[in-house]
Amino acid sequence: MASADDLKKQVGYKAVDDYVRSGMVVGLGTGSTAAFAVERLGQKLAAGALRDIRCVPTSVRTEEQARSLNIPLTTLDEDAELDVAVDGADEVDSALNLVKGRGGALLREKMVEVCAKQFIVIVDESKLVPGLGVSGAMPVEVTPFCWQHTMRKIAALPALAGCRAEARRDAAGALYVTDNGNYIVDLYFEKPIADAYQAAQALRDTVGVVEHGLFLDMASVVIVAGAQGVYEKHR
Amino acid sequence: MASADDLKKQVGYKAVDDYVRSGMVVGLGTGSTAAFAVERLGQKLAAGALRDIRCVPTSVRTEEQARSLNIPLTTLDEDAELDVAVDGADEVDSALNLVKGRGGALLREKMVEVCAKQFIVIVDESKLVPGLGVSGAMPVEVTPFCWQHTMRKIAALPALAGCRAEARRDAAGALYVTDNGNYIVDLYFEKPIADAYQAAQALRDTVGVVEHGLFLDMASVVIVAGAQGVYEKHR
Repeated sequence: MASADDLKKQVGYKAVDDYVRSGMVVGLGTGSTAAFAVERLGQKLAAGALRDIRCVPTSVRTEEQARSLNIPLTTLDEDAELDVAVDGADEVDSALNLVKGRGGALLREKMVEVCAKQFIVIVDESKLVPGLGVSGAMPVEVTPFCWQHTMRKIAALPALAGCRAEARRDAAGALYVTDNGNYIVDLYFEKPIADAYQAAQALRDTVGVVEHGLFLDMASVVIVAGAQGVYEKHR
Repeated sequence: MASADDLKKQVGYKAVDDYVRSGMVVGLGTGSTAAFAVERLGQKLAAGALRDIRCVPTSVRTEEQARSLNIPLTTLDEDAELDVAVDGADEVDSALNLVKGRGGALLREKMVEVCAKQFIVIVDESKLVPGLGVSGAMPVEVTPFCWQHTMRKIAALPALAGCRAEARRDAAGALYVTDNGNYIVDLYFEKPIADAYQAAQALRDTVGVVEHGLFLDMASVVIVAGAQGVYEKHR
Protein backbone atom coordinates (compact mmCIF):
# COMPACT_ATOMS: atom_id res chain seq x y z
CA MET A 1 0.00 0.00 0.00
CA ALA A 2 1.20 3.48 -0.83
CA SER A 3 2.38 5.61 2.08
CA ALA A 4 1.01 9.10 2.66
CA ASP A 5 4.23 10.49 1.17
CA ASP A 6 3.86 8.29 -1.91
CA LEU A 7 0.36 9.66 -2.48
CA LYS A 8 1.54 13.25 -2.08
CA LYS A 9 4.37 12.63 -4.50
CA GLN A 10 2.03 11.08 -7.08
CA VAL A 11 -0.27 14.11 -7.20
CA GLY A 12 2.56 16.63 -6.90
CA TYR A 13 4.37 15.12 -9.88
CA LYS A 14 1.19 14.64 -11.91
CA ALA A 15 0.17 18.29 -11.51
CA VAL A 16 3.48 19.42 -12.99
CA ASP A 17 3.52 16.77 -15.70
CA ASP A 18 -0.04 17.46 -16.84
CA TYR A 19 -0.47 21.22 -16.31
CA VAL A 20 2.89 22.98 -16.51
CA ARG A 21 4.30 23.77 -19.95
CA SER A 22 7.41 25.66 -21.04
CA GLY A 23 6.97 29.43 -21.06
CA MET A 24 4.47 29.50 -18.22
CA VAL A 25 4.30 31.68 -15.09
CA VAL A 26 3.57 29.27 -12.23
CA GLY A 27 2.36 29.80 -8.66
CA LEU A 28 4.07 27.48 -6.18
CA GLY A 29 2.08 26.38 -3.16
CA THR A 30 3.23 25.66 0.36
CA GLY A 31 3.19 22.45 2.39
CA SER A 32 4.29 18.84 2.18
CA THR A 33 2.25 18.02 -0.94
CA ALA A 34 3.11 21.21 -2.83
CA ALA A 35 6.78 20.55 -2.04
CA PHE A 36 6.65 17.49 -4.33
CA ALA A 37 5.35 19.66 -7.18
CA VAL A 38 8.22 22.08 -6.61
CA GLU A 39 10.65 19.16 -6.56
CA ARG A 40 9.27 17.87 -9.88
CA LEU A 41 9.47 21.30 -11.47
CA GLY A 42 13.12 21.55 -10.42
CA GLN A 43 13.84 18.11 -11.91
CA LYS A 44 12.23 18.93 -15.23
CA LEU A 45 13.96 22.29 -15.51
CA ALA A 46 17.31 20.69 -14.70
CA ALA A 47 16.69 17.98 -17.31
CA GLY A 48 15.66 20.51 -19.95
CA ALA A 49 12.16 18.99 -20.19
CA LEU A 50 10.76 22.39 -19.18
CA ARG A 51 12.26 25.77 -19.91
CA ASP A 52 11.47 29.48 -19.74
CA ILE A 53 9.42 29.09 -16.56
CA ARG A 54 8.99 31.82 -13.94
CA CYS A 55 7.52 30.95 -10.55
CA VAL A 56 5.83 32.90 -7.74
CA PRO A 57 6.33 31.21 -4.36
CA THR A 58 3.61 31.50 -1.69
CA SER A 59 5.86 31.42 1.36
CA VAL A 60 9.38 32.01 2.50
CA ARG A 61 9.97 28.27 2.82
CA THR A 62 8.72 27.50 -0.69
CA GLU A 63 10.93 30.31 -1.97
CA GLU A 64 13.91 28.67 -0.26
CA GLN A 65 13.10 25.26 -1.72
CA ALA A 66 12.70 26.76 -5.20
CA ARG A 67 15.99 28.65 -4.92
CA SER A 68 17.78 25.48 -3.85
CA LEU A 69 16.53 23.84 -7.06
CA ASN A 70 17.51 26.80 -9.27
CA ILE A 71 13.90 27.48 -10.22
CA PRO A 72 13.65 31.01 -11.66
CA LEU A 73 11.50 33.19 -9.41
CA THR A 74 9.34 36.21 -10.01
CA THR A 75 6.69 38.09 -8.03
CA LEU A 76 3.14 39.27 -8.60
CA ASP A 77 4.57 42.78 -8.79
CA GLU A 78 6.31 41.79 -12.04
CA ASP A 79 4.02 38.99 -13.26
CA ALA A 80 0.43 39.42 -12.15
CA GLU A 81 -1.05 36.91 -14.59
CA LEU A 82 -0.22 33.34 -13.73
CA ASP A 83 -0.91 30.54 -16.18
CA VAL A 84 -1.24 28.00 -13.43
CA ALA A 85 -0.83 27.60 -9.68
CA VAL A 86 -0.35 24.28 -7.89
CA ASP A 87 -1.01 23.82 -4.19
CA GLY A 88 -2.32 21.40 -1.60
CA ALA A 89 -5.40 21.92 0.56
CA ASP A 90 -6.52 20.89 4.01
CA GLU A 91 -10.10 20.16 3.00
CA VAL A 92 -11.93 19.84 -0.33
CA ASP A 93 -15.72 19.63 -0.49
CA SER A 94 -17.89 18.29 -3.30
CA ALA A 95 -18.13 21.76 -4.92
CA LEU A 96 -14.30 21.95 -4.88
CA ASN A 97 -14.36 24.65 -2.23
CA LEU A 98 -11.37 24.47 0.09
CA VAL A 99 -10.07 25.06 3.56
CA LYS A 100 -6.41 26.04 3.42
CA GLY A 101 -3.86 27.58 5.74
CA ARG A 102 -3.11 24.97 8.38
CA GLY A 103 0.47 25.47 7.21
CA GLY A 104 0.11 29.19 7.93
CA ALA A 105 0.62 30.51 4.38
CA LEU A 106 -3.02 31.33 3.57
CA LEU A 107 -2.63 35.02 2.77
CA ARG A 108 0.17 34.66 0.22
CA GLU A 109 -1.43 31.50 -1.16
CA LYS A 110 -4.72 33.30 -1.77
CA MET A 111 -3.01 36.39 -3.22
CA VAL A 112 -1.13 34.24 -5.72
CA GLU A 113 -3.79 31.66 -6.50
CA VAL A 114 -6.57 34.15 -7.33
CA CYS A 115 -4.23 35.38 -10.10
CA ALA A 116 -3.92 31.97 -11.78
CA LYS A 117 -5.89 31.08 -14.90
CA GLN A 118 -5.86 27.49 -13.65
CA PHE A 119 -5.56 26.60 -9.99
CA ILE A 120 -4.60 22.94 -9.61
CA VAL A 121 -5.24 21.50 -6.14
CA ILE A 122 -3.38 18.35 -5.15
CA VAL A 123 -4.52 16.17 -2.25
CA ASP A 124 -4.72 12.67 -0.99
CA GLU A 125 -8.19 11.22 -0.52
CA SER A 126 -8.19 11.95 3.21
CA LYS A 127 -8.70 15.65 2.42
CA LEU A 128 -12.07 15.09 0.73
CA VAL A 129 -14.84 16.08 3.15
CA PRO A 130 -18.64 16.17 2.94
CA GLY A 131 -18.64 19.67 4.49
CA LEU A 132 -15.95 22.23 5.27
CA GLY A 133 -14.54 22.85 8.71
CA VAL A 134 -14.65 19.57 10.58
CA SER A 135 -11.39 17.74 9.91
CA GLY A 136 -9.31 20.31 11.79
CA ALA A 137 -8.74 24.03 12.01
CA MET A 138 -10.12 26.69 9.69
CA PRO A 139 -7.41 29.35 10.04
CA VAL A 140 -7.94 33.12 10.09
CA GLU A 141 -5.01 35.54 9.83
CA VAL A 142 -5.44 38.55 12.13
CA THR A 143 -3.50 41.71 12.78
CA PRO A 144 -1.56 41.52 16.08
CA PHE A 145 -3.07 44.71 17.57
CA CYS A 146 -5.74 43.58 20.10
CA TRP A 147 -5.83 40.11 18.58
CA GLN A 148 -7.67 38.60 21.55
CA HIS A 149 -10.47 41.07 20.96
CA THR A 150 -10.54 40.17 17.26
CA MET A 151 -10.57 36.48 18.17
CA ARG A 152 -13.60 37.00 20.41
CA LYS A 153 -15.37 38.98 17.70
CA ILE A 154 -14.75 36.20 15.20
CA ALA A 155 -15.98 33.51 17.58
CA ALA A 156 -19.19 35.50 18.10
CA LEU A 157 -20.05 35.86 14.40
CA PRO A 158 -23.46 34.27 13.75
CA ALA A 159 -22.19 32.88 10.43
CA LEU A 160 -19.61 30.88 12.42
CA ALA A 161 -22.00 29.70 15.11
CA GLY A 162 -20.63 26.87 17.20
CA CYS A 163 -16.97 27.43 16.50
CA ARG A 164 -14.23 27.36 19.09
CA ALA A 165 -11.42 29.86 18.48
CA GLU A 166 -7.84 29.33 19.53
CA ALA A 167 -4.69 31.33 18.81
CA ARG A 168 -2.07 29.25 17.03
CA ARG A 169 1.15 28.80 18.99
CA ASP A 170 4.52 27.31 18.16
CA ALA A 171 6.10 24.37 19.96
CA ALA A 172 7.51 26.71 22.62
CA GLY A 173 4.06 28.15 23.34
CA ALA A 174 4.72 31.52 21.69
CA LEU A 175 2.15 32.98 19.31
CA TYR A 176 2.74 31.75 15.77
CA VAL A 177 3.76 34.62 13.48
CA THR A 178 3.01 34.42 9.76
CA ASP A 179 5.38 35.48 6.98
CA ASN A 180 3.41 38.74 7.03
CA GLY A 181 3.94 39.44 10.72
CA ASN A 182 0.37 38.57 11.72
CA TYR A 183 -1.15 35.95 14.02
CA ILE A 184 -3.40 32.99 13.21
CA VAL A 185 -6.69 32.24 14.95
CA ASP A 186 -7.71 28.61 14.35
CA LEU A 187 -11.43 27.93 14.30
CA TYR A 188 -12.70 24.47 15.22
CA PHE A 189 -16.21 23.31 14.33
CA GLU A 190 -18.28 20.39 15.56
CA LYS A 191 -20.51 20.47 12.49
CA PRO A 192 -19.59 21.58 8.96
CA ILE A 193 -19.78 25.32 8.30
CA ALA A 194 -23.42 25.87 7.31
CA ASP A 195 -22.80 28.46 4.60
CA ALA A 196 -19.17 28.98 3.65
CA TYR A 197 -19.97 32.07 1.55
CA GLN A 198 -21.68 33.77 4.47
CA ALA A 199 -18.84 32.78 6.78
CA ALA A 200 -16.28 34.21 4.34
CA GLN A 201 -18.19 37.46 4.02
CA ALA A 202 -18.61 37.84 7.78
CA LEU A 203 -14.90 37.29 8.29
CA ARG A 204 -13.94 39.79 5.59
CA ASP A 205 -16.26 42.33 7.20
CA THR A 206 -14.56 41.99 10.61
CA VAL A 207 -12.05 44.75 11.27
CA GLY A 208 -8.73 43.18 12.29
CA VAL A 209 -9.12 40.13 10.03
CA VAL A 210 -6.46 40.10 7.31
CA GLU A 211 -7.52 36.92 5.49
CA HIS A 212 -9.24 33.58 6.07
CA GLY A 213 -8.72 30.00 4.99
CA LEU A 214 -11.91 29.55 2.95
CA PHE A 215 -10.91 29.35 -0.72
CA LEU A 216 -14.25 29.46 -2.52
CA ASP A 217 -14.78 29.13 -6.29
CA MET A 218 -11.04 29.12 -6.83
CA ALA A 219 -9.99 25.54 -7.63
CA SER A 220 -10.09 24.63 -11.35
CA VAL A 221 -9.10 21.00 -10.91
CA VAL A 222 -8.48 18.79 -7.89
CA ILE A 223 -6.08 15.90 -8.40
CA VAL A 224 -6.77 13.22 -5.80
CA ALA A 225 -4.56 10.31 -4.82
CA GLY A 226 -6.46 7.45 -3.25
CA ALA A 227 -6.54 3.73 -2.73
CA GLN A 228 -7.92 3.27 -6.26
CA GLY A 229 -5.21 5.38 -7.86
CA VAL A 230 -5.04 8.99 -8.98
CA TYR A 231 -8.06 10.78 -10.43
CA GLU A 232 -9.24 14.29 -11.18
CA LYS A 233 -12.29 16.25 -10.08
CA HIS A 234 -13.34 19.22 -12.23
CA ARG A 235 -15.70 22.09 -11.49
CA MET B 1 -10.17 85.23 13.34
CA ALA B 2 -9.54 81.85 14.95
CA SER B 3 -6.50 79.93 13.67
CA ALA B 4 -6.76 76.34 12.47
CA ASP B 5 -5.25 75.23 15.78
CA ASP B 6 -7.80 77.27 17.74
CA LEU B 7 -10.63 75.52 15.88
CA LYS B 8 -9.12 72.09 16.51
CA LYS B 9 -8.71 72.91 20.17
CA GLN B 10 -12.32 74.11 20.47
CA VAL B 11 -13.79 70.85 19.14
CA GLY B 12 -11.23 68.66 20.92
CA TYR B 13 -12.06 70.23 24.27
CA LYS B 14 -15.79 70.30 23.63
CA ALA B 15 -15.91 66.59 22.79
CA VAL B 16 -14.36 65.72 26.15
CA ASP B 17 -16.42 68.29 28.09
CA ASP B 18 -19.74 67.17 26.57
CA TYR B 19 -19.32 63.43 26.05
CA VAL B 20 -16.80 62.00 28.52
CA ARG B 21 -17.97 61.24 32.04
CA SER B 22 -16.23 59.63 35.01
CA GLY B 23 -16.19 55.85 34.88
CA MET B 24 -16.11 55.61 31.11
CA VAL B 25 -13.94 53.56 28.78
CA VAL B 26 -12.79 55.98 26.07
CA GLY B 27 -11.22 55.47 22.64
CA LEU B 28 -8.54 58.04 21.85
CA GLY B 29 -8.09 59.06 18.23
CA THR B 30 -4.96 60.03 16.37
CA GLY B 31 -3.97 63.28 14.70
CA SER B 32 -3.67 66.98 15.42
CA THR B 33 -7.35 67.47 16.36
CA ALA B 34 -7.64 64.32 18.47
CA ALA B 35 -4.48 65.38 20.30
CA PHE B 36 -6.43 68.31 21.78
CA ALA B 37 -9.07 65.91 23.11
CA VAL B 38 -6.34 63.81 24.70
CA GLU B 39 -4.81 66.98 26.18
CA ARG B 40 -8.17 67.99 27.66
CA LEU B 41 -8.74 64.54 29.12
CA GLY B 42 -5.34 64.71 30.78
CA GLN B 43 -6.14 68.14 32.23
CA LYS B 44 -9.48 67.04 33.66
CA LEU B 45 -8.05 63.85 35.14
CA ALA B 46 -5.20 65.81 36.74
CA ALA B 47 -7.69 68.34 38.13
CA GLY B 48 -9.96 65.64 39.50
CA ALA B 49 -12.85 66.77 37.28
CA LEU B 50 -12.86 63.29 35.74
CA ARG B 51 -11.90 60.04 37.44
CA ASP B 52 -12.00 56.29 36.93
CA ILE B 53 -11.41 56.59 33.17
CA ARG B 54 -9.68 53.94 31.07
CA CYS B 55 -8.57 54.78 27.54
CA VAL B 56 -7.75 52.79 24.40
CA PRO B 57 -5.27 54.65 22.15
CA THR B 58 -5.47 54.18 18.38
CA SER B 59 -1.78 54.61 17.60
CA VAL B 60 1.64 54.42 19.15
CA ARG B 61 1.92 58.22 19.15
CA THR B 62 -1.44 58.71 20.88
CA GLU B 63 -0.39 56.11 23.42
CA GLU B 64 2.78 58.09 24.08
CA GLN B 65 0.87 61.35 24.49
CA ALA B 66 -1.61 59.68 26.86
CA ARG B 67 1.19 58.15 28.93
CA SER B 68 2.90 61.52 29.20
CA LEU B 69 -0.34 62.91 30.67
CA ASN B 70 -0.80 59.98 33.09
CA ILE B 71 -4.02 58.89 31.39
CA PRO B 72 -4.83 55.30 32.46
CA LEU B 73 -4.65 53.00 29.44
CA THR B 74 -6.36 49.75 28.57
CA THR B 75 -6.79 47.70 25.40
CA LEU B 76 -9.66 46.13 23.49
CA ASP B 77 -8.38 42.79 24.75
CA GLU B 78 -9.39 43.82 28.27
CA ASP B 79 -12.16 46.33 27.51
CA ALA B 80 -14.02 45.57 24.32
CA GLU B 81 -17.00 47.83 25.03
CA LEU B 82 -16.17 51.50 24.81
CA ASP B 83 -18.60 54.12 26.05
CA VAL B 84 -17.27 56.71 23.68
CA ALA B 85 -14.49 57.29 21.15
CA VAL B 86 -13.28 60.72 20.03
CA ASP B 87 -11.33 61.25 16.82
CA GLY B 88 -10.80 63.62 13.93
CA ALA B 89 -11.56 62.88 10.28
CA ASP B 90 -10.17 63.92 6.92
CA GLU B 91 -13.57 64.25 5.26
CA VAL B 92 -17.18 64.23 6.49
CA ASP B 93 -20.09 64.06 4.06
CA SER B 94 -23.71 65.05 4.64
CA ALA B 95 -24.62 61.52 5.82
CA LEU B 96 -21.74 61.71 8.36
CA ASN B 97 -19.74 59.14 6.46
CA LEU B 98 -16.01 59.72 6.74
CA VAL B 99 -12.67 59.40 5.06
CA LYS B 100 -9.97 58.78 7.66
CA GLY B 101 -6.39 57.62 7.69
CA ARG B 102 -4.34 60.38 6.13
CA GLY B 103 -2.44 60.22 9.43
CA GLY B 104 -1.82 56.49 8.81
CA ALA B 105 -3.71 55.09 11.83
CA LEU B 106 -6.84 53.88 10.03
CA LEU B 107 -6.71 50.23 11.04
CA ARG B 108 -6.40 50.77 14.78
CA GLU B 109 -8.83 53.69 14.62
CA LYS B 110 -11.45 51.53 12.93
CA MET B 111 -10.86 48.59 15.27
CA VAL B 112 -11.37 50.82 18.29
CA GLU B 113 -14.12 53.07 17.00
CA VAL B 114 -16.45 50.29 15.85
CA CYS B 115 -16.47 49.20 19.50
CA ALA B 116 -17.73 52.55 20.82
CA LYS B 117 -21.35 53.12 21.78
CA GLN B 118 -20.86 56.74 20.73
CA PHE B 119 -18.27 57.80 18.19
CA ILE B 120 -17.68 61.56 18.38
CA VAL B 121 -15.98 63.04 15.34
CA ILE B 122 -14.26 66.41 15.72
CA VAL B 123 -13.39 68.57 12.71
CA ASP B 124 -13.06 72.09 11.50
CA GLU B 125 -15.43 73.18 8.75
CA SER B 126 -12.86 72.60 6.01
CA LYS B 127 -13.39 68.85 6.43
CA LEU B 128 -17.06 68.98 5.40
CA VAL B 129 -17.38 67.81 1.80
CA PRO B 130 -20.31 67.33 -0.57
CA GLY B 131 -18.92 63.90 -1.60
CA LEU B 132 -16.15 61.66 -0.27
CA GLY B 133 -12.73 61.34 -1.84
CA VAL B 134 -11.90 64.67 -3.45
CA SER B 135 -10.14 66.79 -0.82
CA GLY B 136 -7.08 64.52 -0.72
CA ALA B 137 -6.13 60.89 -0.34
CA MET B 138 -8.42 58.01 0.55
CA PRO B 139 -5.93 55.64 2.22
CA VAL B 140 -5.89 51.85 1.98
CA GLU B 141 -3.68 49.73 4.24
CA VAL B 142 -2.15 46.79 2.35
CA THR B 143 0.04 43.87 3.31
CA PRO B 144 3.66 44.39 2.15
CA PHE B 145 3.86 41.13 0.15
CA CYS B 146 3.48 42.08 -3.54
CA TRP B 147 2.04 45.46 -2.62
CA GLN B 148 2.54 46.88 -6.12
CA HIS B 149 0.33 44.12 -7.46
CA THR B 150 -2.29 44.86 -4.81
CA MET B 151 -2.07 48.56 -5.64
CA ARG B 152 -2.74 47.84 -9.31
CA LYS B 153 -5.67 45.57 -8.43
CA ILE B 154 -7.18 48.30 -6.26
CA ALA B 155 -6.75 50.95 -8.95
CA ALA B 156 -8.54 48.68 -11.41
CA LEU B 157 -11.64 48.07 -9.23
CA PRO B 158 -14.76 49.27 -11.09
CA ALA B 159 -16.18 50.67 -7.83
CA LEU B 160 -13.16 52.99 -7.65
CA ALA B 161 -13.24 54.02 -11.30
CA GLY B 162 -11.11 57.06 -12.05
CA CYS B 163 -8.83 56.84 -9.05
CA ARG B 164 -5.08 57.30 -9.15
CA ALA B 165 -3.18 55.08 -6.70
CA GLU B 166 0.10 56.01 -5.10
CA ALA B 167 2.15 54.32 -2.38
CA ARG B 168 2.66 56.57 0.61
CA ARG B 169 6.29 57.43 1.30
CA ASP B 170 8.06 59.21 4.12
CA ALA B 171 10.13 62.37 3.73
CA ALA B 172 13.19 60.31 2.80
CA GLY B 173 11.28 58.54 0.02
CA ALA B 174 11.01 55.19 1.81
CA LEU B 175 7.67 53.38 1.90
CA TYR B 176 5.61 54.53 4.87
CA VAL B 177 5.12 51.68 7.36
CA THR B 178 2.05 51.65 9.62
CA ASP B 179 2.04 50.74 13.30
CA ASN B 180 0.94 47.30 12.07
CA GLY B 181 3.89 46.79 9.72
CA ASN B 182 1.85 47.34 6.55
CA TYR B 183 2.01 49.89 3.72
CA ILE B 184 -0.48 52.57 2.70
CA VAL B 185 -1.82 53.05 -0.82
CA ASP B 186 -3.33 56.53 -1.21
CA LEU B 187 -6.18 56.84 -3.70
CA TYR B 188 -6.86 60.19 -5.36
CA PHE B 189 -10.14 60.92 -7.11
CA GLU B 190 -11.14 63.66 -9.53
CA LYS B 191 -14.84 63.24 -8.75
CA PRO B 192 -16.40 62.09 -5.46
CA ILE B 193 -16.61 58.33 -4.95
CA ALA B 194 -19.89 57.37 -6.63
CA ASP B 195 -20.98 54.75 -4.09
CA ALA B 196 -18.89 54.56 -0.94
CA TYR B 197 -20.57 51.33 0.20
CA GLN B 198 -19.71 49.59 -3.05
CA ALA B 199 -16.18 50.95 -2.88
CA ALA B 200 -15.78 49.70 0.70
CA GLN B 201 -17.08 46.26 -0.23
CA ALA B 202 -14.82 45.99 -3.28
CA LEU B 203 -11.80 46.94 -1.18
CA ARG B 204 -12.67 44.44 1.55
CA ASP B 205 -13.02 41.74 -1.11
CA THR B 206 -9.53 42.39 -2.49
CA VAL B 207 -6.95 39.92 -1.18
CA GLY B 208 -3.99 41.86 0.23
CA VAL B 209 -6.10 44.77 1.51
CA VAL B 210 -5.96 44.95 5.30
CA GLU B 211 -8.29 47.93 5.83
CA HIS B 212 -9.49 51.11 4.10
CA GLY B 213 -10.22 54.67 5.11
CA LEU B 214 -13.97 54.71 4.46
CA PHE B 215 -15.72 54.86 7.85
CA LEU B 216 -19.37 54.36 6.94
CA ASP B 217 -22.31 54.48 9.35
CA MET B 218 -19.93 54.85 12.27
CA ALA B 219 -20.06 58.49 13.43
CA SER B 220 -22.71 59.23 16.08
CA VAL B 221 -22.08 62.97 16.26
CA VAL B 222 -19.81 65.34 14.36
CA ILE B 223 -18.67 68.44 16.22
CA VAL B 224 -17.73 71.14 13.73
CA ALA B 225 -15.75 74.30 14.37
CA GLY B 226 -16.37 76.99 11.79
CA ALA B 227 -16.47 80.71 11.20
CA GLN B 228 -19.91 80.89 12.86
CA GLY B 229 -18.76 79.02 15.97
CA VAL B 230 -19.01 75.41 17.06
CA TYR B 231 -22.02 73.26 16.17
CA GLU B 232 -23.03 69.60 16.09
CA LYS B 233 -24.33 67.38 13.33
CA HIS B 234 -26.25 64.26 14.33
CA ARG B 235 -27.15 61.18 12.30
